Amino acid sequence: MKHIDLSRLFDPRKLILVGASEQKLFSAGIARYLFEHGFAERVTLVNAKGNTVFGRATHTTIASAASEGPFDVAIVVVPAPHVERSVEQLAAIGVKLAIVESAGFAETGAQGAARQASLKARADALGIRLLGPNCVGVVDTRSRFSSTEVQEESLGRGGVALIAQSGVFGSILLDWAPYNGLRLSKAITLGNRIDLDEADFLYFLADDPDTRVVALYLEGVGDGPKFMDAVRHCAARKPVVVLKGGVTDAGARAVGSHTASLAGSDAVFAGALAQAGGIRAKSLEHLTDLAAAFDRCPLPKGPNVAMVTTSGSQGILATDTIVAGGLRLATLAPETVAKVKAVAPAWMTVGNPLDVGPSGVYNVALDALLDDPRVDALLVLIAIPWGAVAPFVESGAGMEEMIFNDLAKVRAKAKEMPILVAHIGHPRFVKMTEEAVGDFLPVYPNAERAAAALAAMTTFRKAE
Amino acid sequence: MKHIDLSRLFDPRKLILVGASEQKLFSAGIARYLFEHGFAERVTLVNAKGNTVFGRATHTTIASAASEGPFDVAIVVVPAPHVERSVEQLAAIGVKLAIVESAGFAETGAQGAARQASLKARADALGIRLLGPNCVGVVDTRSRFSSTEVQEESLGRGGVALIAQSGVFGSILLDWAPYNGLRLSKAITLGNRIDLDEADFLYFLADDPDTRVVALYLEGVGDGPKFMDAVRHCAARKPVVVLKGGVTDAGARAVGSHTASLAGSDAVFAGALAQAGGIRAKSLEHLTDLAAAFDRCPLPKGPNVAMVTTSGSQGILATDTIVAGGLRLATLAPETVAKVKAVAPAWMTVGNPLDVGPSGVYNVALDALLDDPRVDALLVLIAIPWGAVAPFVESGAGMEEMIFNDLAKVRAKAKEMPILVAHIGHPRFVKMTEEAVGDFLPVYPNAERAAAALAAMTTFRKAE
Repeated sequence: MKHIDLSRLFDPRKLILVGASEQKLFSAGIARYLFEHGFAERVTLVNAKGNTVFGRATHTTIASAASEGPFDVAIVVVPAPHVERSVEQLAAIGVKLAIVESAGFAETGAQGAARQASLKARADALGIRLLGPNCVGVVDTRSRFSSTEVQEESLGRGGVALIAQSGVFGSILLDWAPYNGLRLSKAITLGNRIDLDEADFLYFLADDPDTRVVALYLEGVGDGPKFMDAVRHCAARKPVVVLKGGVTDAGARAVGSHTASLAGSDAVFAGALAQAGGIRAKSLEHLTDLAAAFDRCPLPKGPNVAMVTTSGSQGILATDTIVAGGLRLATLAPETVAKVKAVAPAWMTVGNPLDVGPSGVYNVALDALLDDPRVDALLVLIAIPWGAVAPFVESGAGMEEMIFNDLAKVRAKAKEMPILVAHIGHPRFVKMTEEAVGDFLPVYPNAERAAAALAAMTTFRKAE
Repeated sequence: MKHIDLSRLFDPRKLILVGASEQKLFSAGIARYLFEHGFAERVTLVNAKGNTVFGRATHTTIASAASEGPFDVAIVVVPAPHVERSVEQLAAIGVKLAIVESAGFAETGAQGAARQASLKARADALGIRLLGPNCVGVVDTRSRFSSTEVQEESLGRGGVALIAQSGVFGSILLDWAPYNGLRLSKAITLGNRIDLDEADFLYFLADDPDTRVVALYLEGVGDGPKFMDAVRHCAARKPVVVLKGGVTDAGARAVGSHTASLAGSDAVFAGALAQAGGIRAKSLEHLTDLAAAFDRCPLPKGPNVAMVTTSGSQGILATDTIVAGGLRLATLAPETVAKVKAVAPAWMTVGNPLDVGPSGVYNVALDALLDDPRVDALLVLIAIPWGAVAPFVESGAGMEEMIFNDLAKVRAKAKEMPILVAHIGHPRFVKMTEEAVGDFLPVYPNAERAAAALAAMTTFRKAE
């Protein structure tokens, strides 16, 4: 089976926006985004009335815009009844790939379903490939191309490719991601999947050098065998994490009126996914927590986890979580114990979890664990009352004096073993942690979520 | 069995701080807090050297401070070897209740364990009741008394009484709570539980008018039968939610070196707790999510849940969660459907979940659901791309125009049925929601967490 090359979908040399408008909020957002992010010279606008869009001239027809092509991609945002004709005209000027963002197809009932069937038949006959309808298309953080208005901050680059079926949900995740530690390579919203589906993108993302992990939110699978083959293909190269909505009967019925998908039997899906090497996420938080871990961390080389904390409780909750997930507490090397004992007060028990309490030796303990050859993964559990931290912060102490002895060393070690951080406490202190290590370590809001992400990482085994 | 009256522990008329110091960070924080929060005139300070504390004179002995009593409560922060003698002297001047915050007891090994056993025997013989050692005592948001330094913001009042075994963990939750929607009536840290334990507080909190729900984090139970009796006693009046650490063998071993508790068999604990009417939390987030729901919401009168959203995906994930939790989607009343259809665009399916998409009728739809007699609980799932919201926000639109048609009505209805909000998206928009309804509705970061909290609420049935 030949997989479609989607690279130009994410980095078009030239593109055409059909239904350009500065009056219609959604369309205006797309044009504004493209103008402001390097695509002003590359985008051609079509507006049936010839109205200007933010001062830019438009073509009244697709045919009259042809001279500015060839176009790698079209974005179609005209009302649903006009979509099919636009697609015909795009095919006529040689466009091979269109993102149809318009809603009003199978998700709205019988009339929409008929409209969708007609559009599909026509596009198939003309040989033009479609993404959508009822989606917001794609975002690429390297090329900075986006077929939807997206907050600039979202474009902080990372290794997570996010596939969401729904356009609204995709957009919201894009709003949310930059403030919640999720760094994206690409984002794709599928909508009604008249043609291109999650499998096509999995085949493509398998070889995308910018993508380290693929995170999918699906409400059903278009073509089951094709999807599982694509998961297998991609999971042989990088982790594929899947959250599925419509797991219960009532949830599945709700899916029907949303993206017009059939949710299918959850047990069958779960079994097939596991067999294909995909990882099932239990919730949206679990999906994004895992994606962040796979993006920033190498895979653990073994099951031995060390944890350092000031809060015995956080260590206990994390221990429960990793053990339930099949990992175990590392037995620390004698040299590690010796290094910590050399600075530890008499009351401190040097073990694993390494609970340093109010000893003030957190940074020394963490540094010693980084060098321990018996440790395959490290959980850095920060939980220090603000009352104890505030005087240090106010006297100008930084995270290196309190937590991370040697940030360069932590950064280097983070390439060799997974180091996951959890910080619970006062938001000012949490922010200091995010600023110090957030660009190279995943930071979670509590010990259990960091531990659960680490445990789930070990379920990924790259196929030979 | 006579339950100890702990009301003066949370609202002492006079108190004595033994080990007062402005040099020692921890002790200084306690004094500073008391001075700044209305207890300057009520607190007597003891410092062995007679050093002043922030300009205040101190007594060199407990005996010499007696003339300023009688004291309802003593706070003891002297080093561990001096604690027993301080407790003897406190008993000698008639103090009946002491919070021992000093560490260095059973949590640190054999010598500490011997010290603890000796302290316990002496206190029992003298008839003085102890909280601790190795804790930070209590916080009361009504009296504003706190035996630890706590951020002022924490003192926003609510109905959640939080019991944490560990002092550090309790302090961190106090830092974290005000920024995460958890409003407290009281907080109690138990430490090594030499005398007063979680059961004593449950008996007391059962009749505390400020407390609507008790949330406990435990690493083991001091006296199993007493604890279960106390849960039964309290759960007959208000919900008791329990998170337990040390569930796995490795986690249980870690408990030993933390708060010197025996974690015990988890299966036995789970069964006994359920029988006593307690609710088991699965994680720290689950504990606080549930506590917030019980604090702000009445119990649902039935299993019929309605949900309004702009994101079909959030509706589907919430549906999966409530159905898995034993609830069901309400069948909307014909009048509700008619009200929404009157304003809905043709493409919109009026059902439950009520996915309004980009119709702009969210506030009308939510308002109609509030009046539906077939709805026992409402999930308000907000998920609107910032690109669609920003123009309205920038033109001065408020939450009443976008989401909550009539905030006064929402507030009134929130007294009759549980209304839980989930908002995922851009942080500026999330903040607007929290400012509009955060004081009377619980606000969660995504649909699944709101739905899980609602589902767990229905597991509480007040005993007859």
